[in-house]
Amino acid sequence: MINSTPKKDGFRMPAEFEVQKQVFLLWPERKDVWHHSAQKAQKVFVEVAHAIGKFEEVTVGVSEEHYEDALNKLGSKVRTIIMPHDDVWTRDVGPTFVINDRGETRGIDWKFNAWGGIDEGAYYPWDKDERVASSIIALEGVKGYHTEDFVLEGGSIHVDGEGTLLTTKECLLNNNRNPHLTQVEIEDYLRSYLSVEKIIWLDRGLFNDETDGHIDNICCFARPGEVILSWTDDVNNDNYHICRSAYEVLKGSIDAKGRTIKVHKLELPQPIFITKEEDDGIIYSKDAKRFSIDEPLPASYVNFLFCNNSIIVPIFNDPKDELALQTLKNIFPEREIVPIYSREIILGGGNIHCISQQQPK
Amino acid sequence: MINSTPKKDGFRMPAEFEVQKQVFLLWPERKDVWHHSAQKAQKVFVEVAHAIGKFEEVTVGVSEEHYEDALNKLGSKVRTIIMPHDDVWTRDVGPTFVINDRGETRGIDWKFNAWGGIDEGAYYPWDKDERVASSIIALEGVKGYHTEDFVLEGGSIHVDGEGTLLTTKECLLNNNRNPHLTQVEIEDYLRSYLSVEKIIWLDRGLFNDETDGHIDNICCFARPGEVILSWTDDVNNDNYHICRSAYEVLKGSIDAKGRTIKVHKLELPQPIFITKEEDDGIIYSKDAKRFSIDEPLPASYVNFLFCNNSIIVPIFNDPKDELALQTLKNIFPEREIVPIYSREIILGGGNIHCISQQQPK
Repeated sequence: MINSTPKKDGFRMPAEFEVQKQVFLLWPERKDVWHHSAQKAQKVFVEVAHAIGKFEEVTVGVSEEHYEDALNKLGSKVRTIIMPHDDVWTRDVGPTFVINDRGETRGIDWKFNAWGGIDEGAYYPWDKDERVASSIIALEGVKGYHTEDFVLEGGSIHVDGEGTLLTTKECLLNNNRNPHLTQVEIEDYLRSYLSVEKIIWLDRGLFNDETDGHIDNICCFARPGEVILSWTDDVNNDNYHICRSAYEVLKGSIDAKGRTIKVHKLELPQPIFITKEEDDGIIYSKDAKRFSIDEPLPASYVNFLFCNNSIIVPIFNDPKDELALQTLKNIFPEREIVPIYSREIILGGGNIHCISQQQPK
Repeated sequence: MINSTPKKDGFRMPAEFEVQKQVFLLWPERKDVWHHSAQKAQKVFVEVAHAIGKFEEVTVGVSEEHYEDALNKLGSKVRTIIMPHDDVWTRDVGPTFVINDRGETRGIDWKFNAWGGIDEGAYYPWDKDERVASSIIALEGVKGYHTEDFVLEGGSIHVDGEGTLLTTKECLLNNNRNPHLTQVEIEDYLRSYLSVEKIIWLDRGLFNDETDGHIDNICCFARPGEVILSWTDDVNNDNYHICRSAYEVLKGSIDAKGRTIKVHKLELPQPIFITKEEDDGIIYSKDAKRFSIDEPLPASYVNFLFCNNSIIVPIFNDPKDELALQTLKNIFPEREIVPIYSREIILGGGNIHCISQQQPK
């Protein structure tokens, strides 16, 4: 690990829509998170892996116990390796890759506390998750940075690759992440590690997002100067005011290049709930939080993943699916839009963007 | 896994001296094989990994338990991954790679029985070793062949890449490997999987080699038409007659291209024994065989590894080291000769060639 910062060393975090080398996933295995022993979730993870595999390489980390089964299910076109992990959220436990102008790549291994630590986190323990980033850094043979006293998850930030970062106060200023740091000090970390200049702070992420409002479920960059924002015109939807507040912040912001920001609205699906049967299929454990059957899941089309020349988009068998895909097609006429029915992933609390981490080329 | 053979599909095993992409190693961990908890062996494995790393990529497979420690010892230039294994002999438990004319690579996952099965093998169980080849095949994302009823170790064969294979009767015709197959049927397997035509059978490997006389400890190809043969002029050396017999076979053979074979003699080191202190440092286990302090170890300079533009050569702090290095320099004026003091590896029964498996480019 390097005792410096990416910015000092000439590295920056590229935007997700820049050219990628590969995407990393982790295999769903927890029976206290994924109903019916994660077997239905595994099927969707296979679909996601194969969808990514059409555009670039994909590597899936699996526990030793599940390795043979995963290898069989994923097939020979997916790079399947043993990598211990506590759950599947590679966006948050994997490294954030940075690049320099000479085409070199390095990885940042952020400190991880399972989205809030012992009291407020999603599960305990998380020691295997904590080691995923360094495992991927070692696997790729790149140099790594480690932030020992700065907690961050990859899903809590988005960058445009040209100096602007999007995040939420609900997450990054939460007392369960870095209570020892002020907002200014947190901004300093982001600037030093990601080489960004302008940080745009939305107040909150989506309602009932157990990550404390990760940006990647409510808003992302489409390209520099343009964002896609989750949206609802239903005043009874818990996200109604959240989306409006975010819109106001975005419309009042200027990015690092001095641009005003174009905001594409992407309508949310209708509220989605875990069924009684699904709920019954989850093994009880005191160590993992779970959704109750009357809580809306934080489902969002914004949680898509950019791959080369494409985006992999979660859909929910919902009346809003078609509108969402059309909206995305209008925003990205140059990209292939690949929808995946991913109810099984949102049942775990996240979606395709949350379970993936791209490595730039 | 493919239900065909490499030969049918147009694939052949390249010679080790052809261009390589990378080399695989496995991390020494067994306390009942490697004295003092394998810590001294680990130091030499780090040296070997770093030596290889000067010429090409190197990947080291480590158990989950030892992963952090190995990562720390191997450093960031080595690709270090979690790969369960029973011991370190990647030559024998890793895949044999084959290539075709279009630059494609596939891997052969031979059935493995720990050099002789329950009664005569070196340790028990070997289920993790049995899965190493398929793990490497999956890691590299290449297609694989598996021989369910044909036992073979990579160290028991050498090829010249032009249709000729070298092996020993002591190993391949041993009743503890494939008692259900005749010599002709074994030759058929070798031809079908490696695309060789001519098989040269030496009678025996080196004395006291617990692999039942692997070829890679007594004789290897230097280039097509030329071999290097372990040698001793000491009539009291247990290998005296073995080397002479091999020489006679080689001088009487014609290779697949119709060439007579040039034999370079490479003098063996003086007999080497495990010391009492080393022996005391091995934890007793009924599941692993060990050398006694009065048995000569099967030490040999022929157990070197070809890397790109180089060879990595075991030396023993022995009076014969200098002669061996000079002989090899004369045979390979075009290659860098990299000696490594590898007593710690031969204490486990093999050497640099045995612990490595190359993947062709």
